Amino acid sequence: MSTKFTLSFVQGLTTREKAELVTGKNFWFTAENKKHSIPKIMVTDGPSGLRKQASSADALGLNQSVEAISFPSSALMASSFNVDMLYDLGKSLGVAAKSENVSVLLGPGINIKRSPLAGRNFEYFSEDPYLTGELGSSYVKGVQDQGIGVSLKHFAANNRENQRFTSSSNVDERTLREIYLFAFEKIIKEAHPATIMCSYNAINGVLNSQNYRLLTEILRNEWGYTGLVMSDWGAVADNIASLKAGLDLEMPGNEEYSISKIVAAVKSGQLEESKLDTAVLRVLALVEKFQINEDNHIDYDKEAQHNFAKKAAEDSIVLLKNESSVLPIHQTEKIAVIGELAKKPRYQGGGSSHVNAYKIITPLEAAENSNYDIMYADGYQLADEESNIELENQALSVAEVSDKVIIFAGVPEKNESEGFDKGTIDLPKNQLELIQKLVAHNPNVIIVLQNGSAISMPWRNNVQAVVETYLAGEAVGEATWRILTGETNPSGKLAETFPERIEDTPTYGTFNASTEEENYHEGIFVGYRYYDLKHQQVAYPFGHGLSYTSFKYENLEIDNTEEHVSVKVNITNVGQVPGKEVVQFYVQNLVSSVELPSKELKSFKKIELNPGESKVVEVVLDRRSFAWYDVQNNIWRVDKGEYIIKVGSSSRDIRLEKSIFLEMGIDNIKPVSGETYISEIINRKDLQKPLIDSGLKSSIDSITAMDSNRELMENMPLRAIIMIGANVNQVNHFINLANESND
Amino acid sequence: MSTKFTLSFVQGLTTREKAELVTGKNFWFTAENKKHSIPKIMVTDGPSGLRKQASSADALGLNQSVEAISFPSSALMASSFNVDMLYDLGKSLGVAAKSENVSVLLGPGINIKRSPLAGRNFEYFSEDPYLTGELGSSYVKGVQDQGIGVSLKHFAANNRENQRFTSSSNVDERTLREIYLFAFEKIIKEAHPATIMCSYNAINGVLNSQNYRLLTEILRNEWGYTGLVMSDWGAVADNIASLKAGLDLEMPGNEEYSISKIVAAVKSGQLEESKLDTAVLRVLALVEKFQINEDNHIDYDKEAQHNFAKKAAEDSIVLLKNESSVLPIHQTEKIAVIGELAKKPRYQGGGSSHVNAYKIITPLEAAENSNYDIMYADGYQLADEESNIELENQALSVAEVSDKVIIFAGVPEKNESEGFDKGTIDLPKNQLELIQKLVAHNPNVIIVLQNGSAISMPWRNNVQAVVETYLAGEAVGEATWRILTGETNPSGKLAETFPERIEDTPTYGTFNASTEEENYHEGIFVGYRYYDLKHQQVAYPFGHGLSYTSFKYENLEIDNTEEHVSVKVNITNVGQVPGKEVVQFYVQNLVSSVELPSKELKSFKKIELNPGESKVVEVVLDRRSFAWYDVQNNIWRVDKGEYIIKVGSSSRDIRLEKSIFLEMGIDNIKPVSGETYISEIINRKDLQKPLIDSGLKSSIDSITAMDSNRELMENMPLRAIIMIGANVNQVNHFINLANESND
Repeated sequence: MSTKFTLSFVQGLTTREKAELVTGKNFWFTAENKKHSIPKIMVTDGPSGLRKQASSADALGLNQSVEAISFPSSALMASSFNVDMLYDLGKSLGVAAKSENVSVLLGPGINIKRSPLAGRNFEYFSEDPYLTGELGSSYVKGVQDQGIGVSLKHFAANNRENQRFTSSSNVDERTLREIYLFAFEKIIKEAHPATIMCSYNAINGVLNSQNYRLLTEILRNEWGYTGLVMSDWGAVADNIASLKAGLDLEMPGNEEYSISKIVAAVKSGQLEESKLDTAVLRVLALVEKFQINEDNHIDYDKEAQHNFAKKAAEDSIVLLKNESSVLPIHQTEKIAVIGELAKKPRYQGGGSSHVNAYKIITPLEAAENSNYDIMYADGYQLADEESNIELENQALSVAEVSDKVIIFAGVPEKNESEGFDKGTIDLPKNQLELIQKLVAHNPNVIIVLQNGSAISMPWRNNVQAVVETYLAGEAVGEATWRILTGETNPSGKLAETFPERIEDTPTYGTFNASTEEENYHEGIFVGYRYYDLKHQQVAYPFGHGLSYTSFKYENLEIDNTEEHVSVKVNITNVGQVPGKEVVQFYVQNLVSSVELPSKELKSFKKIELNPGESKVVEVVLDRRSFAWYDVQNNIWRVDKGEYIIKVGSSSRDIRLEKSIFLEMGIDNIKPVSGETYISEIINRKDLQKPLIDSGLKSSIDSITAMDSNRELMENMPLRAIIMIGANVNQVNHFINLANESND
Repeated sequence: MSTKFTLSFVQGLTTREKAELVTGKNFWFTAENKKHSIPKIMVTDGPSGLRKQASSADALGLNQSVEAISFPSSALMASSFNVDMLYDLGKSLGVAAKSENVSVLLGPGINIKRSPLAGRNFEYFSEDPYLTGELGSSYVKGVQDQGIGVSLKHFAANNRENQRFTSSSNVDERTLREIYLFAFEKIIKEAHPATIMCSYNAINGVLNSQNYRLLTEILRNEWGYTGLVMSDWGAVADNIASLKAGLDLEMPGNEEYSISKIVAAVKSGQLEESKLDTAVLRVLALVEKFQINEDNHIDYDKEAQHNFAKKAAEDSIVLLKNESSVLPIHQTEKIAVIGELAKKPRYQGGGSSHVNAYKIITPLEAAENSNYDIMYADGYQLADEESNIELENQALSVAEVSDKVIIFAGVPEKNESEGFDKGTIDLPKNQLELIQKLVAHNPNVIIVLQNGSAISMPWRNNVQAVVETYLAGEAVGEATWRILTGETNPSGKLAETFPERIEDTPTYGTFNASTEEENYHEGIFVGYRYYDLKHQQVAYPFGHGLSYTSFKYENLEIDNTEEHVSVKVNITNVGQVPGKEVVQFYVQNLVSSVELPSKELKSFKKIELNPGESKVVEVVLDRRSFAWYDVQNNIWRVDKGEYIIKVGSSSRDIRLEKSIFLEMGIDNIKPVSGETYISEIINRKDLQKPLIDSGLKSSIDSITAMDSNRELMENMPLRAIIMIGANVNQVNHFINLANESND
């Protein structure tokens, strides 16, 4: 593509003109320069729907924005485990953005859910980096295929809201690579997002907006990223330091304050002008590529997008529990619908993702519009967490005369939003009390949840069914009702673990314990990796989600070559209704010399099957599926040796597994040296001859013959046995022979 | 003290002579040099008793050593919480060493108990660094006051045995300082140990024996240590690198191999000769100070030392449980003594601490020598972990006709030793089955435990009493019997937590998970600090231990000045028999900006009281009692502000507590800056006037007046509110005024 905005064009601008270009004009626009025919472009919030505001507006959802479709939040969308659905979501957003003359959509947010208390979890996909990366890639492609850019956010390790502008995420390099950077790397390489949004926080003491290692060394030099890096809104504390680190565009930009600082810094030599030129070039490349031609404006079909929002929610809602097939409900039954959330649903998150919804149909409206025999009672008030006896009694009377009771429960908006973390994962007291009372009055209680992230469910053994709808977007009512009635068979799977108690979570006690820093004690053991490690019981595991039908897993076949591992499994719908299943593929490395989880998701596929129908699901696991990040050598390392491939319907419902000897890896047997332990020498058959030939065998034999202290002696390296009388020359001779025999 | 071994003396030696001196002559001797009248000195294992071997012997307990008293292992001694008893132990060892012409005693081992699976826990004191430091200091003074040097070991972060020669302990700096180096620093500063033994492992990738930062920067430059650093036996992988790092003496030294390497390195310039001179000077200073004059030889009174071993064990044995006062036993009762451990007690650990005991009296002998009505049965075989029905039936018949059943249970020696880690914290299967059967046949079951570190007790709710004797030394039988009969009232307290299950322990899943490294995920949250953080139920908490009497805590008084905090409490023996209580003082910091435990032991005192007697216990908490290690500034930092002083009989039996405002700290309120959060500005009364004066008040007021998004906005720093329209000049003016008003 030829461009007008070449380096020599940039070098022809004045320093001040350049400074203006790397400083956002205001909240939603880049700077324009009419003299040089540089247009401005507009950016707009919107991972779950367009939030286009007037240019005077702020970032934080206070003011009105144009009407747009409120799609399901990412927490729910991720539960679809459906890459096609994410692509279509991106496409819908791209179409809407184009129609509204928006060039860049500020999303998706792909941070990892490290604690269920993190206030912004609803905007993120998962606790798993691979799932996040797959879904995020699809979403980004969907948007960008419409000619609209995305801003992949928030880069990186931005996992709490409290003190988010300054808190340092203290995290080791391997964890950073395998957990917190993984999805960024994957999406950047697969989907080429136009921009990356640099997050507020610091990593290991260095503010991300001034982090050269993050923004230049890793992002650009290692990953080859060529797009633009913009700041999160207000993340720049020192715009000179940011430019030096590789941040191209300050948003929203503090006008003259920012611009004059740059001009002065260039003048004083504090900032090399070439650094500024590079940033300007990137801004201009973005502007050129994504400028909107308003003449081409087309309206978009909001009704169709509303229907997509419904379909997406239906594909994502998770049936967590369904005892005695209490769901779906039937038209012959009297149904009590309880809970103010049925009437005033919580369908989107607070903060920058908040959308001025096009058309909201509440669950209660959807129920009342259907041919079901419905009675409704508020049961509790969202505005108050204390129980209201009158409302409770109304609910109890309704419940007593009903066959089934559907309680809409959830987390009120004031308790969960961008900008602050949650204090609890419990439902409000009045809802808990209402549930307790209702289960005593009716044996068929169904809980429908509206919440941004994992909650505790101390009542889960006392209810018959639990349906997780998260924040389901404006079609919440229709989608929920279709799931409850069985018009749609649920097929969502949890993209995060629901723990039994907050005390069980990996970060319990240390999350937000320091105002200045957040220590990532758990390392790579985030989400199910942690619960698996600790053999911790959970309420509902990662990947869990029921259907109104059931699926049989058979015939696991693995084709294992030096280039890839292909895994095939046969899935049959053995129930009575059509349904979708998410087949999950996990890998366990049995040979690594470092800590590793007992399973990691490395592929998944969602398929649809009619009753009795079978399909062979095949996935190919590439090299990276088996890799861990080797910090010492700065490489993704794959060990040669034994792995287990686990195929299941959830992370804790593994249906089939098979051990393979992975050929594509590198041997992690180190050369024999003074550091080689006696126990290894004893166990390795190939070393027996060198032992004899070097004359060292008798020393080793005298150890293996010991009655006591044998284990102690075997746990010594070769170099240490010199001290118990082994001959130095024999030891050295043995080392030489041993390594020769392995060449 | 004038010395013959001056620097100029050293410079007069040949390089080869110097190299010989920094290379141990053999297992137990330093090199001598007759030409220059440099004598050799002998070193000997022995934290819990002298293990003096012939010079041809190895380090690992294989060969016979001279007869010596086997004292209780450190795990038991620590449970005394008795600094005087530790001094007397040191004194006994010093006297024995002198009598045997031993110059340096290789002990005590003061590593922190990080996992109950660590194989060498029996040789260490505690999971708590303060307790370890107090007890270790006393022990070292006791030895060195006899003119014998100690080698304080194993320096440092040597917390597992598997791959101990190479494994890297990956631990953050604050944790290193507060947990793993704390006791070393304390003992070095208080008791001036003659030598420090450098451990096998690496820290953060650098082998300790080559770790300049550890052996020189921290140990010598920061702490001012002037003594000698020797290697653990075989810990030197490269003696040149070790000398450069600050290790003075390689033990045992690989003779000509080691010596010629040094000579060559000096010749080639790889090693500065001055480095070698420094090491030689330290070796000679040690030799000169601790050389033995064999003419002054005196025998020592082994019978008196045996009696001390008994007294020390009695002061340390921990009564964990005693329901319905089943203990002490009475002469009127028929007593079944069950378990091969009563006949073949496990009274000491394996490896370098193994002593050729002077006189062992088994628990069964002690019982049979008493006037009690005793029947004995083996019940199980130590050599076999499978149940033996015949032995079980014998035990059941004895139990059936007895009033009370005392089962001696524990961990067989083959399962627990220096040199390898444990695979389980459970008792062997045959013992578990025997206990299960016996509790069904007799309602009064007493378990007496012999083990090196914390075990699980799934049976603890089914037995009436549990007595923890650890590895009690050669007087195990007499001491245990005196506790069981009430001749001695138990007063030991656990120096480590006994968890319910291995799954509950802080390192579960990651301990020994990597052959190359050990990641200290839990950070400072070791032992009770972790269980408190996670609100984890435990079997028996740190500091727990019952008595045959009980104690009342009253009148907590605190004198809080800028120099110290003095804490007074009144303790009364409100029971029927004389007894000892360990009064424990914990501190909680409520104002720190970093993660901190909810309590940390900062003082303790053991007192003896007759029935009805009261004593005022007073301790003084110094500055360090309130300090945490500030990594950024490399200082021990004390926060000014609110703390809670907690006084109790165990870490989970806090009897009295009081909040204080600590004046001695420094204010941790930072100057107001762009990083100051709006929430802080709103809450600080002193900032209201500057807000008004600067004209910024209306911006802040508009935030506090918000209905929605208020929390989000308050969680923004000052610098970020420029983006929502606050005036830059007003912000800067406010910052200036705010800081002026605080000057």
